[in-house]
Amino acid sequence: MSEQLTNVKSVFHKRFANLSSAISNRLWRNADTNYKCDVLLTFPELIDDRVIVWFLEKFIQLQPDIRVSIKHHFTTGVYGFYLTFTYERVLKGAEALQLEKPIKQEFGGGYQRLLFHELDIYEGVEDEDKFFSTQERQSIVFHLLYSIRILENETLNGIKFKIDQSLIQRGLEKKLISQVIPLHNKEQLNHLRETWVWPKNIFKAQPIVDIRQYFGVKIALYFCWLSFYTRALCLPALYGTYIWYYSGQSQELDDKLFIIHSLLNIIWATGFLIFWRRRQAELAYEWNTLDMEQLEDTRATYKGQLRRSPVTNKYAPYYPAWKRLLFRLSVTMPMLIFNLVLVSFCILIIFRFQAWIDRQLKLGHLPSLMSLTQLLPKILLALVTTVFDDVYKRVCRWLTDKENYREQRTHDNQMIAKMFACACVNSYLSVFYIAFFTHTHIRLSDQLITIFVIKQFWDHVKEAIIPYIVSNTRLSMLIQLSKKEHDRYAERKDLNQELKRILDQWNNSKQIKTTDEISVDYSLSARDFIPSFETLSLSQAEIECLQPKWPDLYEDYLELVIQFGYIIFLSALFPLAAFFSLLNNILEIRADAFKLCMICQRPFSQRVKDIGHWQKIMEYMVIAAIVVNCIFCSIRGVFRRMLPNLPFAAEIFLLACIEHILIIVCKIIRSSIESVPYWVRVEKAKMEYRRREALTKLECNALHLKEGQTQENTT
Amino acid sequence: MSEQLTNVKSVFHKRFANLSSAISNRLWRNADTNYKCDVLLTFPELIDDRVIVWFLEKFIQLQPDIRVSIKHHFTTGVYGFYLTFTYERVLKGAEALQLEKPIKQEFGGGYQRLLFHELDIYEGVEDEDKFFSTQERQSIVFHLLYSIRILENETLNGIKFKIDQSLIQRGLEKKLISQVIPLHNKEQLNHLRETWVWPKNIFKAQPIVDIRQYFGVKIALYFCWLSFYTRALCLPALYGTYIWYYSGQSQELDDKLFIIHSLLNIIWATGFLIFWRRRQAELAYEWNTLDMEQLEDTRATYKGQLRRSPVTNKYAPYYPAWKRLLFRLSVTMPMLIFNLVLVSFCILIIFRFQAWIDRQLKLGHLPSLMSLTQLLPKILLALVTTVFDDVYKRVCRWLTDKENYREQRTHDNQMIAKMFACACVNSYLSVFYIAFFTHTHIRLSDQLITIFVIKQFWDHVKEAIIPYIVSNTRLSMLIQLSKKEHDRYAERKDLNQELKRILDQWNNSKQIKTTDEISVDYSLSARDFIPSFETLSLSQAEIECLQPKWPDLYEDYLELVIQFGYIIFLSALFPLAAFFSLLNNILEIRADAFKLCMICQRPFSQRVKDIGHWQKIMEYMVIAAIVVNCIFCSIRGVFRRMLPNLPFAAEIFLLACIEHILIIVCKIIRSSIESVPYWVRVEKAKMEYRRREALTKLECNALHLKEGQTQENTT
Repeated sequence: MSEQLTNVKSVFHKRFANLSSAISNRLWRNADTNYKCDVLLTFPELIDDRVIVWFLEKFIQLQPDIRVSIKHHFTTGVYGFYLTFTYERVLKGAEALQLEKPIKQEFGGGYQRLLFHELDIYEGVEDEDKFFSTQERQSIVFHLLYSIRILENETLNGIKFKIDQSLIQRGLEKKLISQVIPLHNKEQLNHLRETWVWPKNIFKAQPIVDIRQYFGVKIALYFCWLSFYTRALCLPALYGTYIWYYSGQSQELDDKLFIIHSLLNIIWATGFLIFWRRRQAELAYEWNTLDMEQLEDTRATYKGQLRRSPVTNKYAPYYPAWKRLLFRLSVTMPMLIFNLVLVSFCILIIFRFQAWIDRQLKLGHLPSLMSLTQLLPKILLALVTTVFDDVYKRVCRWLTDKENYREQRTHDNQMIAKMFACACVNSYLSVFYIAFFTHTHIRLSDQLITIFVIKQFWDHVKEAIIPYIVSNTRLSMLIQLSKKEHDRYAERKDLNQELKRILDQWNNSKQIKTTDEISVDYSLSARDFIPSFETLSLSQAEIECLQPKWPDLYEDYLELVIQFGYIIFLSALFPLAAFFSLLNNILEIRADAFKLCMICQRPFSQRVKDIGHWQKIMEYMVIAAIVVNCIFCSIRGVFRRMLPNLPFAAEIFLLACIEHILIIVCKIIRSSIESVPYWVRVEKAKMEYRRREALTKLECNALHLKEGQTQENTT
Repeated sequence: MSEQLTNVKSVFHKRFANLSSAISNRLWRNADTNYKCDVLLTFPELIDDRVIVWFLEKFIQLQPDIRVSIKHHFTTGVYGFYLTFTYERVLKGAEALQLEKPIKQEFGGGYQRLLFHELDIYEGVEDEDKFFSTQERQSIVFHLLYSIRILENETLNGIKFKIDQSLIQRGLEKKLISQVIPLHNKEQLNHLRETWVWPKNIFKAQPIVDIRQYFGVKIALYFCWLSFYTRALCLPALYGTYIWYYSGQSQELDDKLFIIHSLLNIIWATGFLIFWRRRQAELAYEWNTLDMEQLEDTRATYKGQLRRSPVTNKYAPYYPAWKRLLFRLSVTMPMLIFNLVLVSFCILIIFRFQAWIDRQLKLGHLPSLMSLTQLLPKILLALVTTVFDDVYKRVCRWLTDKENYREQRTHDNQMIAKMFACACVNSYLSVFYIAFFTHTHIRLSDQLITIFVIKQFWDHVKEAIIPYIVSNTRLSMLIQLSKKEHDRYAERKDLNQELKRILDQWNNSKQIKTTDEISVDYSLSARDFIPSFETLSLSQAEIECLQPKWPDLYEDYLELVIQFGYIIFLSALFPLAAFFSLLNNILEIRADAFKLCMICQRPFSQRVKDIGHWQKIMEYMVIAAIVVNCIFCSIRGVFRRMLPNLPFAAEIFLLACIEHILIIVCKIIRSSIESVPYWVRVEKAKMEYRRREALTKLECNALHLKEGQTQENTT
């Protein structure tokens, strides 16, 4: 028995050593990059031949500017369409997406929305490969793919495709297509890995320009915010440590330090939020998203009945607002409330259990050997919060998806609100319970140290290291277990030949020579199906297909906003909170970068002009912090010791007054500082002025031309 | 002695009867309307001849499209320039002001910004007289006048005119020009008087369309708000009266009614503000101001050093922000604080005095005859508040003017904030003092009835009737005392001839025939100077010159917002507040209309998209009302009677909790209802879509034309 176990162990060990870490690195290095392809669309493994052929035919027929190459991934047996468009179509797509591009110096410089009819004024438009960053190309290609719409009602495998419906959207919705992912660019990714994930100096500034170029504005903004926050944390870390050092000498001094620390925290938080808002406006200006009208681009997963849009008069999916409201009232609200009550209940039960065990131990009712049971509630608590952490995130995602918002921004904000509400209860309830109802200072410190040191460390492990190991192991397993290429090819020989026939025919009809890179590289050429004996020659794209999807920024923001809350709510009780947070965040930057560059699929870039509801939430948290700290002042007896003759009722009234005054002062400060810096406003006005002048000029030209023509016609 | 008095009285009486009411009506009726003139510019009475000639020459030279007619007003001896522009120039001005105009049905309908190069697509553009409303023409003419700028440095009467400086602005600033006013249109004004000021049925809806056409968006929006508010008041008036009827039976019932009434008030106020915000968005959509970019048009009275604007690179007045900040910190703040402290001090002193007299009377230290002295503090209080009311309004105006804001909107908002702060103390302090510190219910009701019945009635008298009498009396006096026309003419014969020469010469050079209506009607023709023996044949314009300037809407809004405050703060103590407010507001509508149509000069129209800071102020007032009502609950002992066993400290804590929960609920409700109704958003999206399509089309056309031309050139 034991021998067998050792055997299994050693086998596993070997496999792991051989395949997982070592191999997957090799995989990444050896895989060839798909330079000339932007987006990969894959089908489920066991999909009908018809479906693949039908989609190929539709793409070719409905959007002749598309460039398709097909690969049969031998590890998983899925088919991948490697998609891109002609440069002309990409430029037109950029116009539709209202992308801003730099203008040549001789035409006035600065940025302007790309207009296809004025291409010659843009800087570097001649260079097909470099004019758009890969991230931009991918967004455009996705937008173009998404806007391929059915021209007449059709039925495929029993699934109806209605007129004006998006081919891709319907395919994804009905699981005819398994995923649409943008592909990594190996060169740029490696550069990012070197300079960002594994920099020589951990305190080195992040390469924000490169990040924005590669991952887009939303992600770059997150990392800007994170580094701004981390730098801002130095201040409370400093005075927190200082106060921690001096506290504990006398009760009187401690009380004074408590009040000073609370006030400092609130001032710091207010200042941080104001200056971040200004910095954000600067960044938005630099990245040309300040004036961005919220594009009414529909989310890819938005579902709804097709009906004529009152705006464009074309068929578009429509989900009535009353249904959403009904869902929110009848499902979202009860589920969230149930969730919150359940968590609260569990946590309170555990605290009761803890109190009971403590009492039993004190009374000696339990044998002293059982003193380890004291740890039991703690472990239970950790378990419950961890489990619920996972559960509520899933629930919130599911609920928000079901609520079916049309715009990405609304979706994000709703998700944020839900997640934050759940996280609040899950994270703060236990701490506040201890702080408010049990007066043992030591236990609170215990709890907070657990959170700041252990939980945050564990989060890094959970988010970065475990997924990395899991995904690599899975990959290696898969490769080991997968069939040989020639088996795969033989399996679906008919389909392969059919696809090749269609592609060849189309290439001939479009007169694309076979020397043309695009069609040769990715067309279903024979080369792809020649069985090679090096079974590990996976392409990078195939690996990316198997990587987990990037989970967007909700959880990353959430974690940090909750941490921000600990600092402003509780750091007067635990002055080192800011210091530990600072340490954690320095790691956090690299951990999040690691997740993006090493573990997940590349995400589609998104353009945003601010961090959304998080700003508002943090602003409300500062207000809440004022209330919480006032309550602490009363509960911890700070006021009673300072003004011993004050009746209790007067004390509470006084605290309520102080609270209101602080809130008003906070609001006044917030509203009296401009959220957009002066220089940005001037630059904006300049831009606006130039644009207006340019428009007048354009119209004048059109008029002169028209007049000129009429004259020529009459003469 | 008594005979003499009777004499004076009878003389005054006669004069008043003859001249004031009767004559001024006659004046209005007989005066000829200046149909073909938009704006009247007058010079001070004793101005140098040179100045008038210089201005005339400058106008002609710098803006040849101007049409000037000159009249010598014989009653006051001032010179008036009657100004307008050619239709072409007015159209161009409308383009610069980004006026929106309806498009002909065949071009798609809807509204669009006026573009001079596409005139033919606008509905009714052919009709010079009706395409613009008089109010629009006046705004455009004022804008054009304002943008007449000096081309090189000059000196006039020791006053320097620098390059790029606005002629009109500098003239007004240095008192070379006394006023620039838009003229009334008699026909439309009479129509408004009949349908609006003196309607057959006082409950009849206001002719909002006509008001907007005649006075512009800002004034129309005020009257919409006023009528919306008045209608909304029906609800609290109803339940207020109901509660008033049932109260006073037992303490228990009263307590319940108190709580119910407070809650109802807060719910009503929250709902009112939310629905007004939606209504406002609808109005803004209908009036085409929703998408209005805040025009960076400089206020006419903005002063500053000339410097090159970083935006347009032209010379423009510039007032550095640090100077404004310095002024605000060193002058505005201390003055406002001084003002507030002084008022508070006076009011408190008066209350002390009242208490002292009450005590003396009770103790019988004062003879019973002196019981009338009890009224003395009340009269003093009324006097003090009335005087301060006037003082702080002047101070706020002066301070805001000195702070010198460039944009009208900022100016308005700053004025509103200051006025409201002062008015708060002046209006609420005495009431809150009684409510909080003296527990006599009767005295509070006294005070509130005084406010609601006497003060509001007095306000109408002060705002409408007195100014009407004063202005008419002054006018009649002036006419009686004024010189005859031929004396006036002889006085400044040289100037008159010089002006006539310049005008004639210019008219000849521009080849404007004398039959041309514009030049004949208003040129300095001999007819104007032939003495007529009917001394009362004043032109309407001359009368308007003598009317007081319209004081903008600050005070009108202020009065109503303060009233709104009484209702939500105090109506639980005085349930009839809403009812009396309702009665007052029905009168208020007509009184304000009277002021606009009968007393004041016509104002220049302003375009706004909302009521500005008033909305915010009322929103904050609702929050404050929650706090105030909670305090009342405690002070009036409502809670103590309902929960007699609750310790006082717990009561206060409980109230603080209730207060916070109410505020949070209020905020959630407010943020969960969209401030722009769905249909407006759809229409907006439609407009945006159409615009984008049109732009693409325009560019395509331009391109085709260009291509066409190049081809023609090559062939």
